[in-house]
Amino acid sequence: MKALVLEQTKTLSIRDIDIEERLGPNDLRVRPSHVGVCGSDVHYYLHGRIGDFVVREPMVLGHETSGVVTELGSEVIGFQVGDRVCMEPGVPSYASAEYRLGTYNLDPAVRFWATPPVHGCMRETVVHPAQFTYRLPENVSLEEGALVEPVAIGVHAAKKASIQPGDEALVLGCGTIGVVTALAAAASGCSNVYITDIDAAKLRLVESKYGSQVTPLPQDQLAKLRDRMDVVFEASGAESAIVNIADHARPGGRIVLIGMPNDRVSVDIVAIEVKELTLSSVFRYAHAFPRTLQFIASQKIDVRSLVTHSFSFADSIKAYELAGSLPADAIKIMINMD
Amino acid sequence: MKALVLEQTKTLSIRDIDIEERLGPNDLRVRPSHVGVCGSDVHYYLHGRIGDFVVREPMVLGHETSGVVTELGSEVIGFQVGDRVCMEPGVPSYASAEYRLGTYNLDPAVRFWATPPVHGCMRETVVHPAQFTYRLPENVSLEEGALVEPVAIGVHAAKKASIQPGDEALVLGCGTIGVVTALAAAASGCSNVYITDIDAAKLRLVESKYGSQVTPLPQDQLAKLRDRMDVVFEASGAESAIVNIADHARPGGRIVLIGMPNDRVSVDIVAIEVKELTLSSVFRYAHAFPRTLQFIASQKIDVRSLVTHSFSFADSIKAYELAGSLPADAIKIMINMD
Amino acid sequence: MKALVLEQTKTLSIRDIDIEERLGPNDLRVRPSHVGVCGSDVHYYLHGRIGDFVVREPMVLGHETSGVVTELGSEVIGFQVGDRVCMEPGVPSYASAEYRLGTYNLDPAVRFWATPPVHGCMRETVVHPAQFTYRLPENVSLEEGALVEPVAIGVHAAKKASIQPGDEALVLGCGTIGVVTALAAAASGCSNVYITDIDAAKLRLVESKYGSQVTPLPQDQLAKLRDRMDVVFEASGAESAIVNIADHARPGGRIVLIGMPNDRVSVDIVAIEVKELTLSSVFRYAHAFPRTLQFIASQKIDVRSLVTHSFSFADSIKAYELAGSLPADAIKIMINMD
Amino acid sequence: MKALVLEQTKTLSIRDIDIEERLGPNDLRVRPSHVGVCGSDVHYYLHGRIGDFVVREPMVLGHETSGVVTELGSEVIGFQVGDRVCMEPGVPSYASAEYRLGTYNLDPAVRFWATPPVHGCMRETVVHPAQFTYRLPENVSLEEGALVEPVAIGVHAAKKASIQPGDEALVLGCGTIGVVTALAAAASGCSNVYITDIDAAKLRLVESKYGSQVTPLPQDQLAKLRDRMDVVFEASGAESAIVNIADHARPGGRIVLIGMPNDRVSVDIVAIEVKELTLSSVFRYAHAFPRTLQFIASQKIDVRSLVTHSFSFADSIKAYELAGSLPADAIKIMINMD
Repeated sequence: MKALVLEQTKTLSIRDIDIEERLGPNDLRVRPSHVGVCGSDVHYYLHGRIGDFVVREPMVLGHETSGVVTELGSEVIGFQVGDRVCMEPGVPSYASAEYRLGTYNLDPAVRFWATPPVHGCMRETVVHPAQFTYRLPENVSLEEGALVEPVAIGVHAAKKASIQPGDEALVLGCGTIGVVTALAAAASGCSNVYITDIDAAKLRLVESKYGSQVTPLPQDQLAKLRDRMDVVFEASGAESAIVNIADHARPGGRIVLIGMPNDRVSVDIVAIEVKELTLSSVFRYAHAFPRTLQFIASQKIDVRSLVTHSFSFADSIKAYELAGSLPADAIKIMINMD
Repeated sequence: MKALVLEQTKTLSIRDIDIEERLGPNDLRVRPSHVGVCGSDVHYYLHGRIGDFVVREPMVLGHETSGVVTELGSEVIGFQVGDRVCMEPGVPSYASAEYRLGTYNLDPAVRFWATPPVHGCMRETVVHPAQFTYRLPENVSLEEGALVEPVAIGVHAAKKASIQPGDEALVLGCGTIGVVTALAAAASGCSNVYITDIDAAKLRLVESKYGSQVTPLPQDQLAKLRDRMDVVFEASGAESAIVNIADHARPGGRIVLIGMPNDRVSVDIVAIEVKELTLSSVFRYAHAFPRTLQFIASQKIDVRSLVTHSFSFADSIKAYELAGSLPADAIKIMINMD
Repeated sequence: MKALVLEQTKTLSIRDIDIEERLGPNDLRVRPSHVGVCGSDVHYYLHGRIGDFVVREPMVLGHETSGVVTELGSEVIGFQVGDRVCMEPGVPSYASAEYRLGTYNLDPAVRFWATPPVHGCMRETVVHPAQFTYRLPENVSLEEGALVEPVAIGVHAAKKASIQPGDEALVLGCGTIGVVTALAAAASGCSNVYITDIDAAKLRLVESKYGSQVTPLPQDQLAKLRDRMDVVFEASGAESAIVNIADHARPGGRIVLIGMPNDRVSVDIVAIEVKELTLSSVFRYAHAFPRTLQFIASQKIDVRSLVTHSFSFADSIKAYELAGSLPADAIKIMINMD
Repeated sequence: MKALVLEQTKTLSIRDIDIEERLGPNDLRVRPSHVGVCGSDVHYYLHGRIGDFVVREPMVLGHETSGVVTELGSEVIGFQVGDRVCMEPGVPSYASAEYRLGTYNLDPAVRFWATPPVHGCMRETVVHPAQFTYRLPENVSLEEGALVEPVAIGVHAAKKASIQPGDEALVLGCGTIGVVTALAAAASGCSNVYITDIDAAKLRLVESKYGSQVTPLPQDQLAKLRDRMDVVFEASGAESAIVNIADHARPGGRIVLIGMPNDRVSVDIVAIEVKELTLSSVFRYAHAFPRTLQFIASQKIDVRSLVTHSFSFADSIKAYELAGSLPADAIKIMINMD
């Protein structure tokens, strides 16, 4: 089948690849419709690795996807051929302690699309467990369906924040994850959500797209939030943001760690302690897809505005080249597989 | 000073009353601007008592109020004469165990406006602790300020519900408290909020006012929510609603008890247990005024549409007569004190 | 194989029964060593049903069991033939929504030993998923292993109580579940645990067995705990205990519902609301076996003293006859299968 | 009155000092009976400062104290002259936002004994609010009463840990705070509590005092706990302990930060995130004294064994000289004021 293949660092090709996929009794076969370009895809494309995960053989990219069901496993119930769906890209082991505890995202043995050595979904068909596939509500488009995955990270982060009704929140970092976290926080009970970034262009982009829901704030105006925020979401991964993160929070406030620094970072532990802050942390998501779909269907989160650039599958290498330049005017680059 | 006085059951008068109010060092003197008519006011008007609280002497009514500061106690900081404010009608003792624990609404010694023998605020001036007075944000009107009190009950109920991002909720009962609870739940992270009542006229009223945020549902359509709701808010106080309340909730779901039945009610404990439901309960509110104001200021909760009828102070007896007829087309009856 | 069979209401026999049990790849075959007599076993014996679960065909009794592994499924890891184990009697479906959420006890499709039509474990061998089988620590005997099941209910109830360090708790009801709940609460952070019952003989029994950990309190002394308890565990199932349960709790306190009344019961909802009590509820347990084993191994919970009567398998009908008389001097009747 | 005065860094004297203390209507006058030597006292003695708190004038030391009531303010209820009491050394403002929220320890304006410029309690009498004074139960001695303060830190840390019944915990650091945290964790629902330190002598001391409740573990055996601990308490303040703190915790586990590093420390954020750990933090305590007293009275925490050295008030300078040498064989040095 045709696929977008990362042959080696910085080398992509659209070509036939032989992926045998047996349809198990509880699986669905799905034809991908839209696939978003994720920062991790771009990282593999540019650097060939993320931490211990190294691309050693050609790997199909892509894990943010919607599609249409083309075949049902023998024991599948609740789906029909032709159903419009989105899919959770990570599949844990049912036998794991983490799955049993309800924290399946923490299963160390999870198999995740486009994380070596597992192929991603930028190809003609994928086979996926029905258990991790979700039908799109009628009023959610296939393009929106492909955006569920990144938005689910924000929804999961909002859940981790234990938001109280009317909380005020600050999001550090205005990349895709920062933006979806801000939208999720606004939908999840915050009265005001501020977002900041060192890049003023990114703030302007958020202002133009989501100014009625989220308040972009330049770094030099952060002081006015000092000691006031109920929740601080760290979505930059930057040491400069983390070192003084306690400053923004009110006594008794909460911090949610989402961004992943490349190295160890300095932290002012005492500043955290004298405010008795609670820090929670986020690794992907669990149980977040159905809730994200409900937020989209009920129009509490507008995901369409996230898409700043669209490409056809034939142009998907160009999409990656653009993404690799880390343009400030991009939130989400979307590839239409049809 | 002039006041609306409940002389005895079903007898109101607008007349002069002599209320001596010393301005303590941490107090404000405030001229009430708007006062909403609450169900408890109406209950005292119609029945002369609520449980153990009996109106034995003439009592000024009213506890949902906004106003303008006219005088400051000697040690007050953070306020100025002319400030537009709303006030929390219940003042606990700072020395109580409950105040110290942060649950000041549970202090048995709380003094609450228009709860015998404490006069309410439908009069020319009131003296109130600055600690329980809140400045209105610029974009919040005085009429909106008088609506903070009832909405705070809904916000407190939403807090008690431990809403997770994307939860679906059902509110039982379409009185004022049911409606504000539904609005608060929608603002506090629910993706869908359903509300039901035995009175179809009330459902139509909610549909016309808040149909884009809340889904009114006739009783005969409740079955489709069965076993599905993450949260059920009981705001009717009706035994018929409480006896089978577990039916609506999903396994592991939550129930919030707000309505106060007149008597003991039958409960199916086993139905609660087999789903391991958690029930929390609400008595007024604590820490909810600032959060409610933030929700109003950020337009997450539209309170203006709550007002279905307005009266001048001179016509306030008519307002109570109307309220006493329990009209199905009323959500909130508002009295303008000026 | 030989088994203790409930032929019909009040008719037991020890006889051969033909139960075909296929050893699946993830299963263990286990020879039961000790089986405790549970109230539900006795209820089926005396009444032939519990709610909708009706004994329509001969059924093997017993679900509180320890044993020795005799055979391993082909894919089992972590066990060896000869391992001393205890087993969780309820096995949910891995595909259920509840299993995935981490609340597997709430799966409506759970298969539970000695709950019609599923045979219990009072027989020569059982086949059980390794996933729901637990190795006994070296210092935990096989008899103690058979006590893990009932104690797990108490440990689960203690978890549901959200015990804060130093909390004081009251347990209503001095049956087996009341006693194990009191022991679990004492091990789980309570500074003082009181237990009460209408039967003074039961209080004396608890005093003699566990007087250093738990304080039995006659009903006429309950008034001194009024409004003071951080946690109230309802383990009696009696309407007389439930109707005024709020009286014992402090404002902001917690109630845990464990006992299952036969019918709907009257509840004073307003009494719950004015204290803003939180009620949680318990259905069996989830994730509790490993924790219970740790408590037993570390001697935080002494389970040996629970056994008041022991019988051989040959005498197990006598054991049920004794249990059926509901003797006040019994906490747990144990049957040695060897 | 006579007092132990820190004249300047490393210079103590026992001498008369003139401290005027007005007895307010809600205050008690108390004659201190026992005062423990705290690490912060020693730090002021050795270095003259802790962070921004600098000893600029002679200051009386001591804040861990019990005593006997000698005089009552005019409005005090619930106390009598002669009552044996312990006192919370930090007094917040009732008007603070933090007091109202129930987190009074976070009030930035708290006045805390022996924190410059506030005198400590190593003197003949102190005046203290009745609100922050606690009567000792009959079976708690005055010496034990002076130990409530440090143990309250452990109890507060245990509360912050959200211990689930049967959790296993590791305490990093075997100083006084590490030991009391371990004891509190054991009393608060942990089945097993491990404690470690780089100093083997300290581990041996804990083994000899508390070996039946707590398991001291040399650093080179920590690997066997890797990825297993439900809770990790950081009580060392050492960067070497903090940098890899995530290693000990299980996925979904909790970390409680108690120790205060002198500087910023390096933290592996990604290691925290991939396990979705939650970090809470501790600053002194709130609401912990009554609970600590209940734990001592019910013998769930044995505090007497904490006292390794005792001195008379006349020898209190020697007590500080000993404490200043940071001896490995000391847990708590106690001064008897009589």
